[in-house]
Amino acid sequence: MFKNLLEIINHPQDLHRLNNQELVALAAEIREKIIETVTVTGGHLGASLGVVELTLALHSVLDSPNDKIVWDVGHQCYAHKLITGRRDCFATLRQWEGLSGFPKMDESEHDSFDVGHCSTSISVATGMAIARDLKGEKHKIVAVIGDGSLTGGMAFEALNHAGHLKKDLVVILNDNEMSIAKNVGALSEYLTRLRFHQTLSWARDEIENFISRIPAIGSSMSKAAALFKDALKSVLPGQIFEELGFSYLGPVDGHNIGQLKSAIQDGIARGGPILIHVLTQKGKGYAPAMENPEKFHGVAPQSAPKNDRDSVFSYSEVLGKSLVSLAKEDERIVAITAAMASGTGLEEYAKKFSDRFFDVGIAEQHALTLAAGMATQGLKPVVAIYSSFLQRAYDQILHDVCLPDLPVVIAIDRAGVVGEDGPTHHGIFDISYLRHMPNIIILAPKDGVELYHMLKWAVTSPHPVAIRYPRATTTLKSQELDRDFTKSEVVYDQGDHFAILAVGNMVAPALEAAQVGGFKCKVVNARTIKPLDYATIDSVLKNTRNLVTIEDNVVAGGFGSAVLEYLAKERHNVERVLTLGYPMESIPQGTIAQIHQHYGLNVDGIINSIKEFMVLKVR
Amino acid sequence: MFKNLLEIINHPQDLHRLNNQELVALAAEIREKIIETVTVTGGHLGASLGVVELTLALHSVLDSPNDKIVWDVGHQCYAHKLITGRRDCFATLRQWEGLSGFPKMDESEHDSFDVGHCSTSISVATGMAIARDLKGEKHKIVAVIGDGSLTGGMAFEALNHAGHLKKDLVVILNDNEMSIAKNVGALSEYLTRLRFHQTLSWARDEIENFISRIPAIGSSMSKAAALFKDALKSVLPGQIFEELGFSYLGPVDGHNIGQLKSAIQDGIARGGPILIHVLTQKGKGYAPAMENPEKFHGVAPQSAPKNDRDSVFSYSEVLGKSLVSLAKEDERIVAITAAMASGTGLEEYAKKFSDRFFDVGIAEQHALTLAAGMATQGLKPVVAIYSSFLQRAYDQILHDVCLPDLPVVIAIDRAGVVGEDGPTHHGIFDISYLRHMPNIIILAPKDGVELYHMLKWAVTSPHPVAIRYPRATTTLKSQELDRDFTKSEVVYDQGDHFAILAVGNMVAPALEAAQVGGFKCKVVNARTIKPLDYATIDSVLKNTRNLVTIEDNVVAGGFGSAVLEYLAKERHNVERVLTLGYPMESIPQGTIAQIHQHYGLNVDGIINSIKEFMVLKVR
Repeated sequence: MFKNLLEIINHPQDLHRLNNQELVALAAEIREKIIETVTVTGGHLGASLGVVELTLALHSVLDSPNDKIVWDVGHQCYAHKLITGRRDCFATLRQWEGLSGFPKMDESEHDSFDVGHCSTSISVATGMAIARDLKGEKHKIVAVIGDGSLTGGMAFEALNHAGHLKKDLVVILNDNEMSIAKNVGALSEYLTRLRFHQTLSWARDEIENFISRIPAIGSSMSKAAALFKDALKSVLPGQIFEELGFSYLGPVDGHNIGQLKSAIQDGIARGGPILIHVLTQKGKGYAPAMENPEKFHGVAPQSAPKNDRDSVFSYSEVLGKSLVSLAKEDERIVAITAAMASGTGLEEYAKKFSDRFFDVGIAEQHALTLAAGMATQGLKPVVAIYSSFLQRAYDQILHDVCLPDLPVVIAIDRAGVVGEDGPTHHGIFDISYLRHMPNIIILAPKDGVELYHMLKWAVTSPHPVAIRYPRATTTLKSQELDRDFTKSEVVYDQGDHFAILAVGNMVAPALEAAQVGGFKCKVVNARTIKPLDYATIDSVLKNTRNLVTIEDNVVAGGFGSAVLEYLAKERHNVERVLTLGYPMESIPQGTIAQIHQHYGLNVDGIINSIKEFMVLKVR
Repeated sequence: MFKNLLEIINHPQDLHRLNNQELVALAAEIREKIIETVTVTGGHLGASLGVVELTLALHSVLDSPNDKIVWDVGHQCYAHKLITGRRDCFATLRQWEGLSGFPKMDESEHDSFDVGHCSTSISVATGMAIARDLKGEKHKIVAVIGDGSLTGGMAFEALNHAGHLKKDLVVILNDNEMSIAKNVGALSEYLTRLRFHQTLSWARDEIENFISRIPAIGSSMSKAAALFKDALKSVLPGQIFEELGFSYLGPVDGHNIGQLKSAIQDGIARGGPILIHVLTQKGKGYAPAMENPEKFHGVAPQSAPKNDRDSVFSYSEVLGKSLVSLAKEDERIVAITAAMASGTGLEEYAKKFSDRFFDVGIAEQHALTLAAGMATQGLKPVVAIYSSFLQRAYDQILHDVCLPDLPVVIAIDRAGVVGEDGPTHHGIFDISYLRHMPNIIILAPKDGVELYHMLKWAVTSPHPVAIRYPRATTTLKSQELDRDFTKSEVVYDQGDHFAILAVGNMVAPALEAAQVGGFKCKVVNARTIKPLDYATIDSVLKNTRNLVTIEDNVVAGGFGSAVLEYLAKERHNVERVLTLGYPMESIPQGTIAQIHQHYGLNVDGIINSIKEFMVLKVR
């Protein structure tokens, strides 16, 4: 009877006219639309399916964009996008020049903040609440944060501050017991206990009732009773949040729109900082995603190439396999990740070496300093984290690993552009943010074989070592290898018009560009970013004054910049250098190939840039 | 009767022979020694005086270095240093080539980790506990963390993980109700409630006793009683920590050695993760520090120059005064700091604009994203944080401020070397870690007047702006100024042998070097680091091919590197460039003058480097 409701929702206010039954029907339509679209475009299926009812309940009760909804991480925003005027372009989700898979302020007035990384929403919402009150405005502000994101330290910093400020602010804890993977940590266990707390609440009422009927026996008892009344408050569920200054409401069934609407209305009416504990199921309504939520956290587009499993592996898989093989030989090796065990290829390792595997949850800062602590005691920790998320641990890498020169290995997965996840997820800053740190060695393999050998070398190094590798596939074919993987390798030698120094995944297109362009040049696989292989650079420069550097990273402060610094310091800068990489701007979403093409980092782009560079005369 | 006990303590094991009375006498001697030394050398007086008894109790019960004590922040380690074999060189504290004011692994086997920044100790200790258990060892591990440090998000990440792992591990919460300043936040209020929890604990015992004497009235009551027994557990003090998997012990009087020893012994005997809540008083035993703990958090050396208050101000004071003046005119301006209100010069502002001032406690990540949230709502947040601590917010600056291009002003105090606090505190990375971020504008004033005008300009900018200024004094004398403070300024023009581009506090020595050296050159006050003032650079390069860049920052990825990138991209690199700054190494402690001299960044050093540069021939 309620057909095609989604078709008439052009603004969230349109929801205000629907009753709960109609909202339930709309939820089903939205789920269908999301599944139908995302199984083609790829995207964060599970997270978005889990919050369909929550999204509808929020927009039914609130008045967006006057009221603000701040989504944490943001990958759960698909239902939100569908009902805020983006239904008709929804098929462009996560594609080049299409809709972002995350909230973006410049895409819609209903997207209150740009998101992508975890644990930011309570800080943002608190800032908005302060602004609202200073400006004498009255609107409502709701942050929606997952239980996974809540383990990120900055969420705690924000709770601590917001609870102290006492501003009107609703935090919805979307508890699906998952981040990317199953959640870990004491907080997660605590939330599980809360799920069963309603029984306890009943017991408390019984006791309170019972005690009140007993006449006070002397002053000691009556004083005790008064104090006990206070004490009872602390038996309330959600005590951690209550102690941090939040009122706790819940748990609420996150797939019951009526219950959700009431809870949100209650929370808002109560005033002050409120935390509403909502229980949802990741992937709700799509059987494959409910059965295997980690696998369906993010799904690949239909068009994605399937691996030939015998010879093609993702770099993440190579990391995992390499680590399994190395850990067999050396029991000092331990692996750490931050809610990315599967994404970083560590599942097999985690099973085989469960006592030497530590998933710390969404807690990159802790992950690095934990590793530093281990390293002081003779262990050989390998921390596997995506480049973009490793940004959270900048200070810990610098202060706890590099300054004390501790042998921690950082396996930087998804270095370079990552494709459809877009600007917040591209791993294009790591060379620039690591290169100035003391003591650290930074390597980049050109393929899986090199990744294995670099890792093998890294776990024997007495210094911190970072190895960056892309979100891509590679082979593990055996090949003739130099003996030292921390030195550069000349992979093409057809003359000295110029020399290309290429980093990691840029070696292949550089080589192809040289071949296709028929260039009389050398191509060097840099392998080491820090320290540079000065000897190879000097040797190459014996016969040419023209250098080209190529990296899947911003040029500013990156590998090219390192080469320039060396030339300035040691060679007084008489060389001409073309530095290829990304400019300092927000790099858009699209396939990795589209992005490389747009920024001239594919074969054609490299050929064109070099031709232009070589015809120019020195002024 | 107990005279000169300190003289016979050469190793912490020597404490094991002392009784509690002797330990009390030793504590008095240690206090005297600390006060006597630190009032001369300067240092963190309050923190170290607060933990004298705690230090003695720990070393009496533990067997260091076999057992590990992990000090958080580390500035409270003076008593620890005095009893671990460093008594006789204690007078060299914080001086060039002297004892560090923080724990340093290469200084003593009793210093289990290198520290300086907050909130790292629980992560380190957890890493050590994992290593111990994997290696089948049996020693004890104790982290000592202040209540201020506990508000840092990574401490929460570590608690969450350690509570889940259930390893034997003692965390001592040193609750002095202060970080650098008085603590803020809901957690701090919670700890205050815990201080009064003992009464409640008594009430609970009374009630429990009472209930047990009442016969069960029917099955409903008996079921309730059983559940209530569970509920009572959650009335235990320290519930937050208990819920996170830690056993809570305390509060304990942190100046009673007997109580402390018993509590530590109890905690260790209990096994698993234990949190012992110890109450201490910052500055204990030194009246001026007890009366004004914020002022005595860190004291300046006796030899420090006194300001002529009429004309000389610290840059921090200039920031504060400027902000007061600007905030009067524009009510959208708000100020945020992270437990550094006094250090960043914001005390007057905080008093005058208390509703527009936010000290978030030790929570740099939250501070930046809070500001981003405010900026989306039209406020003009100015976040004032020390360069070294701002490192904690690297990802928040990039992901929450720069990618969405939000107008947040970051006032980076103590940029450049900071002197006696040493490697962990030098602010010599900020140019390198900010310069590759999209949208941000980075400025550096050469004096207080420029700082004022840059700040005035920054709060009107639609983009993120960072202003970096040193730990130094400056004047506010009125002067003729260009109209645009985001463009470079030629401050010396005596020829074209070469041109110096100097950043911020390096302008003065550069100018003096040019004058003293009698150089026929130009000196340019860069003012803007990002974007560079290309027009001025081009104009200077019309008549010379020799450039010198000078910055109080690492060269790698820094200002000099930005100039090299520009020359490579736009001018094909035909210039010779000398880049002066710091190498990628751990920069030691000492006076700022000593450090500048050591790295050739004083007048003589600059003259020598330039002479050497100019006599060299181009290859």
